[in-house]
Amino acid sequence: MLISESVLRKFTEDIFTAMGCSETHAVLAADVLLKSDLRGIDSHGVARLTGYVRLWEKQRINTRPNIRIVHETPTTATVDGDAGLGLVVAPFAMKVAIEKAAQYGSGWVAVRNSNHFGIAGYHALMAVEQDMIGFAMTNASPLVSPTFSSERLLGTNPMCYAFPAGKYPPVIVDMATSAAANGKLEIAQRLGKQVPEGWIQDKQGNSTTDPHALKSGGALLPLGGDIDHGSHKGFGLGATVDILSAVLSGANYGPWVPPFVSFLNPPSDPVGAGIGHFVGAMRVDGFRPVDEFKAHMDNWIARFKLSATVDPYRKVIIPGEPETAAEADRKVNGIPLVDAVVKDLNGLAERFGIESLN
Amino acid sequence: MLISESVLRKFTEDIFTAMGCSETHAVLAADVLLKSDLRGIDSHGVARLTGYVRLWEKQRINTRPNIRIVHETPTTATVDGDAGLGLVVAPFAMKVAIEKAAQYGSGWVAVRNSNHFGIAGYHALMAVEQDMIGFAMTNASPLVSPTFSSERLLGTNPMCYAFPAGKYPPVIVDMATSAAANGKLEIAQRLGKQVPEGWIQDKQGNSTTDPHALKSGGALLPLGGDIDHGSHKGFGLGATVDILSAVLSGANYGPWVPPFVSFLNPPSDPVGAGIGHFVGAMRVDGFRPVDEFKAHMDNWIARFKLSATVDPYRKVIIPGEPETAAEADRKVNGIPLVDAVVKDLNGLAERFGIESLN
Repeated sequence: MLISESVLRKFTEDIFTAMGCSETHAVLAADVLLKSDLRGIDSHGVARLTGYVRLWEKQRINTRPNIRIVHETPTTATVDGDAGLGLVVAPFAMKVAIEKAAQYGSGWVAVRNSNHFGIAGYHALMAVEQDMIGFAMTNASPLVSPTFSSERLLGTNPMCYAFPAGKYPPVIVDMATSAAANGKLEIAQRLGKQVPEGWIQDKQGNSTTDPHALKSGGALLPLGGDIDHGSHKGFGLGATVDILSAVLSGANYGPWVPPFVSFLNPPSDPVGAGIGHFVGAMRVDGFRPVDEFKAHMDNWIARFKLSATVDPYRKVIIPGEPETAAEADRKVNGIPLVDAVVKDLNGLAERFGIESLN
Repeated sequence: MLISESVLRKFTEDIFTAMGCSETHAVLAADVLLKSDLRGIDSHGVARLTGYVRLWEKQRINTRPNIRIVHETPTTATVDGDAGLGLVVAPFAMKVAIEKAAQYGSGWVAVRNSNHFGIAGYHALMAVEQDMIGFAMTNASPLVSPTFSSERLLGTNPMCYAFPAGKYPPVIVDMATSAAANGKLEIAQRLGKQVPEGWIQDKQGNSTTDPHALKSGGALLPLGGDIDHGSHKGFGLGATVDILSAVLSGANYGPWVPPFVSFLNPPSDPVGAGIGHFVGAMRVDGFRPVDEFKAHMDNWIARFKLSATVDPYRKVIIPGEPETAAEADRKVNGIPLVDAVVKDLNGLAERFGIESLN
């Protein structure tokens, strides 16, 4: 079913309001989720709304948080999210980073006591709008095994770097540090297909192509897949995200990160508070004039777009390009929702006494 | 042949001095190369000395550079390396970043008009010694094809994140953003062995296991190897390094990066000056007390070291751990050099009238 941005936005705001969010927070949280749906990252948009509601029902999300800076220098800060929605905590942190960057050239904020923050790209793009380079990362529930391990110790721990350009849209590198995201496994499960080697391992740590292996105690593999293909690099990137987001902020890290699913309880021996994020902003004109930078970004993009290809029908894709194209399309033509998501959302509508989607 | 650190260090200093470096620069450049050899990264140590000499002979390296800040804010700067050795330009830039971080919490420096800077880890570790988190990256001669391309447009573009710990050595994530480094291909070439799928493609862009494919117009592949295994992520990381190091600083980027080998001329239509680096430092205590951070780093490391393994003989490796072990060993027992490198170095000794290694 295709649904217009405005209808889905209003619906999402209403759910957050019904959960007790302030109007400002409901609007902001809905904006983060809608951005994901608009940009074609369906796994991180309204499809997750029921997940947030269930965590709130378990009192693991605080919809009236006192989000505050607990420590700072001119260009660094640690923010405590007070168990709020990451969807509002991360934009708060990014605003702090942008304000520091405006004054001193750069700003960096580590966040603890938060929850899942949606797509990293949303937060990094806040900086891009100010002619800054944006960074955003978060740790997440453990699903990924380090190279040589059979244990799940890291989340898919995404990192995002976003760069403003001139006539072209921004370059946005927004990626899980695992070989494949959980959403891709779910697609294979629904279609009854095998997945490529190098995505997952079974409970004993053997490579498998069974997309159900994750549900029976297996694990996602770090980017690279195995040691011969550089999985130690994917592990290193996931570790970097974990350390910056949580060891630096005072959040939970590694296997202590609380699960996103409400039916699993958080570990009883936490090493910090909630999950962690790390965001940053750097003024482009802290390094060279913005016009010069953008002209060279355009040249960089144009050169890579025009590069010789292996297959004439598969052009080189600039990071962020497909998402920008999806956003232009979906803003006009609406957002496609699969039946299962519509059913979920209408379940929420019923629960909260809101008009259902149809 | 095993050679002591002190002998190899003196030899290397003498070569740099003979090239016209100041004593300070010769000592520093040798320290960067020796750090690489000590830490077991043999490809980036004295084995590259002849490469630097040949570039200097072609007047592409200036051994008396006026390295200077050309633009700055309280926490950002752009440094022009005046075509100097990256081995001295990058430490200059990192010192600027550390000074800014000491005063304002963080410091970030983009570098143009430089040359190869050795191992990224050397520079990032300068920050770690000050209880800061260190970042270092550099672009490099184009050898890597973006996903779907048959052209070489990116270097192996390494990135390094380094974190101080307490009783454990620092965690150092120092990685090329390609699936495999060129050095690994060279090993396979020498042994007459095939390489795994996903490392390289031939001139037409077809996957190959022939380690000689790179020399006949092929290309290295981004981390991930192919699109199914996330090579768009490796491409995105390589692009991030290229943009931060060169588009931001005013260096050459993408296919315009001058080749490291002296027998290939730099492109005749440069888009910037030399190659570029990007370095940064953040004070740990800009986020939380250093002791707290280090205690949690130790807990993180201990937990990952002890994780259940697939194979009892292959433990989980903490990033930087093998290099730290190599350094401890080689400081005592000496640095192993293969015959070809000894021969190269003795060629330099003869050229400059310096006592040869034996």
